[in-house]
Amino acid sequence: MPVTGRTGLAGFTDLALESGYVFEEMHIAYETFGTLNAERTNAVLIEHALTGDAHVTSGVAEPATAEHPSSFAPGWWEEVIGPGRPIDTDEFFVVCANALGGCNGSTGPTTIHADGLPYGSRFPALTVRDLVTAELALTDRLGIESWHAVIGGSMGGARALEFALLAPERVRKATVLAAPAYSDADQIAWAHTQIQAIALDPDYCGGDYAALGRFPAAGLGLARQIAHLTYRNDVELNHRFANAHQFPRPAGAPDTYYSIQSYLDHQARKLVHRFDAESYRVLTAALRDHDVRRGRHSDLAEALAGARSEFQVIGISTDRLYPPAQVAELAAALPGTVTHHTIESWAGHDGFLTEGQKVGRLVRGFLEG
Amino acid sequence: MPVTGRTGLAGFTDLALESGYVFEEMHIAYETFGTLNAERTNAVLIEHALTGDAHVTSGVAEPATAEHPSSFAPGWWEEVIGPGRPIDTDEFFVVCANALGGCNGSTGPTTIHADGLPYGSRFPALTVRDLVTAELALTDRLGIESWHAVIGGSMGGARALEFALLAPERVRKATVLAAPAYSDADQIAWAHTQIQAIALDPDYCGGDYAALGRFPAAGLGLARQIAHLTYRNDVELNHRFANAHQFPRPAGAPDTYYSIQSYLDHQARKLVHRFDAESYRVLTAALRDHDVRRGRHSDLAEALAGARSEFQVIGISTDRLYPPAQVAELAAALPGTVTHHTIESWAGHDGFLTEGQKVGRLVRGFLEG
Repeated sequence: MPVTGRTGLAGFTDLALESGYVFEEMHIAYETFGTLNAERTNAVLIEHALTGDAHVTSGVAEPATAEHPSSFAPGWWEEVIGPGRPIDTDEFFVVCANALGGCNGSTGPTTIHADGLPYGSRFPALTVRDLVTAELALTDRLGIESWHAVIGGSMGGARALEFALLAPERVRKATVLAAPAYSDADQIAWAHTQIQAIALDPDYCGGDYAALGRFPAAGLGLARQIAHLTYRNDVELNHRFANAHQFPRPAGAPDTYYSIQSYLDHQARKLVHRFDAESYRVLTAALRDHDVRRGRHSDLAEALAGARSEFQVIGISTDRLYPPAQVAELAAALPGTVTHHTIESWAGHDGFLTEGQKVGRLVRGFLEG
Repeated sequence: MPVTGRTGLAGFTDLALESGYVFEEMHIAYETFGTLNAERTNAVLIEHALTGDAHVTSGVAEPATAEHPSSFAPGWWEEVIGPGRPIDTDEFFVVCANALGGCNGSTGPTTIHADGLPYGSRFPALTVRDLVTAELALTDRLGIESWHAVIGGSMGGARALEFALLAPERVRKATVLAAPAYSDADQIAWAHTQIQAIALDPDYCGGDYAALGRFPAAGLGLARQIAHLTYRNDVELNHRFANAHQFPRPAGAPDTYYSIQSYLDHQARKLVHRFDAESYRVLTAALRDHDVRRGRHSDLAEALAGARSEFQVIGISTDRLYPPAQVAELAAALPGTVTHHTIESWAGHDGFLTEGQKVGRLVRGFLEG
């Protein structure tokens, strides 16, 4: 397999957010796979989800740095992206950037501020449009006039959609996967519980735990468990775990310890080891506030009328975070050429990741069409 | 309206739990409405849900005590129970007992132990069968050989079902509303998140907050919000609240404060003012562990085969805590005469409370049949 992966870190100055806050200096970490053609027409931007990162597929990331070790490790969309795969890195120049506010190389709450301490609670509130604004700056930096496609699922779908609205002429095709036009009450509610879980942890320290050498692991873990339950479907969980007890019972576990508890505790531990709590809070709030209508038009179709891309909109049949009806509402309101699919899967929202073959086939067809 | 409500407090000794733990002394608080007939054949036991209490309908509660003030206040099932209402207190002698482990008169974690301090963390783990065991003791005390009906929704439905299994000859009719034969993985998972939310609060103090003059209000409030989201349906929440901002914004609220957040915060405050955190944890764990198969038979129909009651099983079409398919599974597995309904409602699980008219019509028909 040819080594096609590269990492990059792009620095920007005076990046203004929707709120008016200005980052005097900020960085976006990204990875690229494949080669940009001479006409610069084969670039595809992949937008990751809430706790995703730029490592979308394997391939050595080079040049290696302490922050960005070379990695043949599988990426989070390994099935979908790579040489000969649906999004073919032999054909496309694939770029994936760590979201602004994240904790995998881009400027976020754990970044050291000019005063030598982490941003922590001083990190500004972000919107999905702010994340896209940063990615537009990266687009310029990479010398890409127009993306052949911008593709993302979940928060990545919201970013893809906003990208197509903020820069209509710079996105030929956009795939919005398992994401709606706006967060509705139910999604805002689940975000509310997660943000409270993090803040409830005595180690949260109002967001300034990093400067104090603390970390709200239990709070972030609980937030993740709540989120994870919205990412999966009850039918699948009941089938996989039923009310079986975990055996053998781990040391320190309570007397009654079910397999589903063990599974959720495992999900919590995994996230806590790889993700920052304040990044989670900031990005959860950004997604909670996602609404393409804001500042455009209260009518959804009118708000979307400025888009010029060809759209592919994909829902998951059992998604209980973004139910297919809400995804269908977006598809129906988009202008121009819109292809709408609902993937039959029992994986719930996480189907955008776990149903890589089905997603890959659909996206491949869309890119070729 | 005639004054038909009375409160009672029954003391018992040496009540043994499934775990082997023995309460040397414990109390069950209850209310009664209507008059027991000479043949003692018109008694109906109402089983309340997780945070319910014995005050199922209005009517003066007498004799008044500090713990049980006389009350014309509406009860939690006011539409369904009362003179001339579906469960007619002119006809039936209605009894409702506060669950063991609760915080509304019955022995629970806030009860003062023999050593002069609240039970707190020393309060034993309970099962739904333990709650019914206590209610069987109360049944004896009231001189009721056999209940004409035992009726309950949610945790009350689980109690009604277990009552019909623990004492088959003492329940002529049983209505199980919005409750399953066992908690499945998804329900265990939601309980897991709620129990963690309470324990995460620094004021929880391992369950011994009461002795320390503290109370984990934020943790209990978050647990309630998670629960409340499982009690309602997303379609209803989205319709009622959308992504509207709360206006006017309350003092102290964050810059972005949605109506759904305000609604959930209100739900949390309401519960925190009326319910104990450790009672919530103990009863949540009991319901999490609900399984009629435990110690009986791994096959559901076999586990239920000992029941002798006539059953009415009612699901709610949009219930995302106990989906109608799970309620239907119970109905299909019960022996003898079983009537199964699914109430069409958008209220979700809470429909067992908010759809009083529909529930009342069905229960009335069942009691008359």
